Amino acid sequence: MNHFDWDHSFYVDFDLAAGFSEKAEPTRRYLSQMKDMYYDSAAAEKILKTEDPLIYEFYELGFPEREGDLAFGTTILYPGKVGNEYFMTKGHFHTKLATAEVYYTLSGEGCMVMENPEGDTLEMPLVKGQALYVPRRYAHRSVNTGKDPLVMFFTFQADAGHDYGTIETKGYHKMVVEKGGETAVVPNPKW
Amino acid sequence: MNHFDWDHSFYVDFDLAAGFSEKAEPTRRYLSQMKDMYYDSAAAEKILKTEDPLIYEFYELGFPEREGDLAFGTTILYPGKVGNEYFMTKGHFHTKLATAEVYYTLSGEGCMVMENPEGDTLEMPLVKGQALYVPRRYAHRSVNTGKDPLVMFFTFQADAGHDYGTIETKGYHKMVVEKGGETAVVPNPKW
Repeated sequence: MNHFDWDHSFYVDFDLAAGFSEKAEPTRRYLSQMKDMYYDSAAAEKILKTEDPLIYEFYELGFPEREGDLAFGTTILYPGKVGNEYFMTKGHFHTKLATAEVYYTLSGEGCMVMENPEGDTLEMPLVKGQALYVPRRYAHRSVNTGKDPLVMFFTFQADAGHDYGTIETKGYHKMVVEKGGETAVVPNPKW
Repeated sequence: MNHFDWDHSFYVDFDLAAGFSEKAEPTRRYLSQMKDMYYDSAAAEKILKTEDPLIYEFYELGFPEREGDLAFGTTILYPGKVGNEYFMTKGHFHTKLATAEVYYTLSGEGCMVMENPEGDTLEMPLVKGQALYVPRRYAHRSVNTGKDPLVMFFTFQADAGHDYGTIETKGYHKMVVEKGGETAVVPNPKW
């Protein structure tokens, strides 16, 4: 996975609007891999009978998990819904909990849903041309509330680590849904 | 300087092409503040007799120098030359030497000039739509070799610190000049 020389500089392309990269490696997440994360599991099963949509993909570099290095790449989150819940990334805590992350939105619109281990929640807009700061200690999931792909350039400490498990068990405290034609942040009934 | 809540998320605008921000604070560096960094000091003095050009500006957020946080912003480096040496940033080592930095070029073209304390040098192109990795332990200075502003979105560990002094004494081992209509990286005669 690690084709880049982290001790002697390198460059890598990321399309400034679409987010795609020729040099970086894509990881793709389809609905079948995360169907249990959506509240309306019947709606997820119904979609999966006819297709397995690509929810998001991210381009990363196989970085070394070393102190002082930075990991970076792009995430492309597609528009769509499962029931009335918008397409979203799995989201994660950092294993080294007190490490932040920066998301610079290159195109599209959406929402970053965050929560810390104490259950404090934060929801912030993701808007083209704005950088969003995910503070230390907050799990973070991006949600596409628009009609076009949501594209973000992200950076975090390379030794932060990803902890998906903690948040997979019950999901986030909040979910982002379409309600009467509007975007709404509502409590997750599983909590 | 610190208007942002680093413990509870915030967002800040950075124009995706021009780099300007309304919410972040600009710092501006004029030729008079860095005239001794250019090799051709007579050319610098000659320019300063009639004007004091803005060489570059950067938009930052007054970040807390805490472990786990990230600093980020944009740099806008204007086109021009002092003698045959292209406009450039001061450049710096990180005080916490073994910390990297990511530069994502939003527009323009140029070159990143890097060197470590042992005197090993690296020069890499800065190209719109490419992210450049400045490895740990390398001082770094960007140079505008084009005709338009060179605009970069950068991120680094907030506790990295900036050490300008070390590199100010004698400058970098290499300089970037126009030579016979071409861009050339040449040894700095001061070394």
